[in-house]
Amino acid sequence: MTVKTQQWQTLWVNINLATMTEGGAGYGIIEQGALAVSEGKIAWVGAQAELPAYDQRQVEVIDGQGQWLTPGLIDCHTHLVYGGNRANEFEMRLQGASYEEISNAGGGIVSTVAATRKASEQELFSSALPRLTALHQQGVTTVEIKSGYGLDAENEIKMLKVAGLLAQALPVTVRRTFLGAHALPVEYKGRADDYIELVCEQMMPQIAEDKLADAVDVFCEGIGFSLEQTRRVFNSAKKHQLPVKVHAEQLSDLGGTELAADYQALSSDHLEFLSEAGVKAMAKADMTAVLLPGAFYFLRETQLPPIELLREHKVAMAIASDANPGSSPINSIQLMLHMACTLFRLTPAEALAGVTCFGAKALGLADKKGQLAPGYDADFALWNISQPAELSYQFGVNPLTALVRAGVKVIG
Amino acid sequence: MTVKTQQWQTLWVNINLATMTEGGAGYGIIEQGALAVSEGKIAWVGAQAELPAYDQRQVEVIDGQGQWLTPGLIDCHTHLVYGGNRANEFEMRLQGASYEEISNAGGGIVSTVAATRKASEQELFSSALPRLTALHQQGVTTVEIKSGYGLDAENEIKMLKVAGLLAQALPVTVRRTFLGAHALPVEYKGRADDYIELVCEQMMPQIAEDKLADAVDVFCEGIGFSLEQTRRVFNSAKKHQLPVKVHAEQLSDLGGTELAADYQALSSDHLEFLSEAGVKAMAKADMTAVLLPGAFYFLRETQLPPIELLREHKVAMAIASDANPGSSPINSIQLMLHMACTLFRLTPAEALAGVTCFGAKALGLADKKGQLAPGYDADFALWNISQPAELSYQFGVNPLTALVRAGVKVIG
Ligand SMILES: [Zn+2]
Ligand SMILES: [Zn+2]
Repeated sequence: MTVKTQQWQTLWVNINLATMTEGGAGYGIIEQGALAVSEGKIAWVGAQAELPAYDQRQVEVIDGQGQWLTPGLIDCHTHLVYGGNRANEFEMRLQGASYEEISNAGGGIVSTVAATRKASEQELFSSALPRLTALHQQGVTTVEIKSGYGLDAENEIKMLKVAGLLAQALPVTVRRTFLGAHALPVEYKGRADDYIELVCEQMMPQIAEDKLADAVDVFCEGIGFSLEQTRRVFNSAKKHQLPVKVHAEQLSDLGGTELAADYQALSSDHLEFLSEAGVKAMAKADMTAVLLPGAFYFLRETQLPPIELLREHKVAMAIASDANPGSSPINSIQLMLHMACTLFRLTPAEALAGVTCFGAKALGLADKKGQLAPGYDADFALWNISQPAELSYQFGVNPLTALVRAGVKVIG
Repeated sequence: MTVKTQQWQTLWVNINLATMTEGGAGYGIIEQGALAVSEGKIAWVGAQAELPAYDQRQVEVIDGQGQWLTPGLIDCHTHLVYGGNRANEFEMRLQGASYEEISNAGGGIVSTVAATRKASEQELFSSALPRLTALHQQGVTTVEIKSGYGLDAENEIKMLKVAGLLAQALPVTVRRTFLGAHALPVEYKGRADDYIELVCEQMMPQIAEDKLADAVDVFCEGIGFSLEQTRRVFNSAKKHQLPVKVHAEQLSDLGGTELAADYQALSSDHLEFLSEAGVKAMAKADMTAVLLPGAFYFLRETQLPPIELLREHKVAMAIASDANPGSSPINSIQLMLHMACTLFRLTPAEALAGVTCFGAKALGLADKKGQLAPGYDADFALWNISQPAELSYQFGVNPLTALVRAGVKVIG
């Protein structure tokens, strides 16, 4: 293949690369490497010693000073647009208040739905911006944001629009997921099927028509929606040509993952109670397992996801923050890397794959993002570390020294 | 009492205060308050409506915009000066390597001691500076730093000197603790008593004479030093008029805490296996219990410290990072607040007391730092939050908007 070096705009030299091109098997390391960018895409990656000739007057050369380059990080599961916060409920619970007392004080997801409905687009944007900024400053170039605290057409759409505004405010690619089937709104108490009807017949067509979402998600759980209700939402998504994903097997083995596999879902997320049959179904459907160590930690769960089975059946494992006010009020992808290793016993290479190549896969972007390879989007992060494992071994000092998105340096 | 407002230099108005003056019972809240500073000390604290008359031409008035003011945070137990890091060992363990394989690859504390001995003062300073900077940017104005990776006179002194250099580089008060009895250096294998002799007869006198330490610490544990060895170190410290503290009851109930109580120790730290007798001894000796949720998390411990007993016997509980390369590679006091609540079930008020008034107490500074009260050092932090519980409920977005140390604004 002829390398069209005349199209190169920038060339990063004197770097070590964790290309993440090995499908999670390792870092895909290139030491003393180089990477060239052309038109927002990666044009060339390899050992610096093998660089083809290029026109030094036309190409901006950037010295990476021996630091490590990885793909830009991807947080593939967040709920970071919401109104209010639940600090009050957090404090009450630790002071010994009962579930009833907290509920009577207006706690739980009900309070977030009320606050989200009450908030204007501008207010939701202003409160979400620092959260996304925090992720971005930690190396995130792609994030997924779910709706799910509006629970009516107007407010679900408001949330998705705010997610769109965030993408304009920061150099981060935002993928939006419609999660109307997140919880039952109070006004539908005892009428879950009617609510699902609303999700499928009113919200979905409008959101699809206005192209406000890239995927559709359902909270399939005893305290969420049933298998049959999940199926109805998936059918509606299919009708509108939207890919699906599912919150499943977090608290029990309801079978949501296997149902999702029937719909060639992008991912099933949480998975603490996933059975081997579920793992096999995921492998067959080439789904990604999205593991959420922040929620595991915050809820003090003790049942680990079936990591060994997922490895055995070669299911891609992504790692995400699940940033949300109720079960993971944590906006830190670097902490997720640390917790994926410490709590879930992933290797540092698996954890890094979880926020790069497999984070991309969970969003249907496996051929565009999450790898340092020719043709991929030029989203990458430069780190002041001496080996990639440091990204998950230590926490607190942010080692990010530069961040590039679509070929443009946006940090550093 | 006459208020000498003519000595005020700065006055913070339009703030809510968590004064932390209630000995851990609560936040000591003053809403719509004000705070005046004179000569690096807090001169006045109270409701803004009750402000005495002052000369508006002489006092700089700062508008806190309705944000919350707390004492500057105190991280009272760290080991943040060290050489190398242990990412390699972390990765090997997660890849399934055995203890022997890691040990053969030079892992464990031995590797940190070797790297620390090898490093120059300048190298140790350069690697520790970002760690202390990270803590500082999270609101820390006082930090304790231990020696303990030198394990000979020259290198223990080198570590303590580096801790002193850090105090000159950043506007943070550094308290230094001599932890020569941290581990047995390889050259003393099988001769622990001889090493303790070295600690007491060679290191201690020199460190005391050169005023390189504010306190003395011992790792009293089956894998550390025995009760008898601990007693020898305490006797030597006493002889040199240095207060003591102890790493104890982390892995077993050896009785180090009760021994420390006999010496009126400042604190006993870790404490997962502390007995009720130990709790009572601490209460009687007015010692502080320093809880280290980062090490608990990183080592995936399951035995919780006896929080309920500590509450019952009114033992002050401090919270610290234990930042160190082996068991808590985490430089984040804000994450410690989160983990103290999430893992140890402290209330947010107890957690905040743990990094303010009781952090100060663990360092023998209870009458100078950790409270917003007249006469106390003017070290305080301004936070963009709507209630103090948010400091431990959410993590990732740093809400610090200003930091004042000795009356001088150093951040914001
Ligand atoms: Zn979620
Ligand atoms: Zn320690």
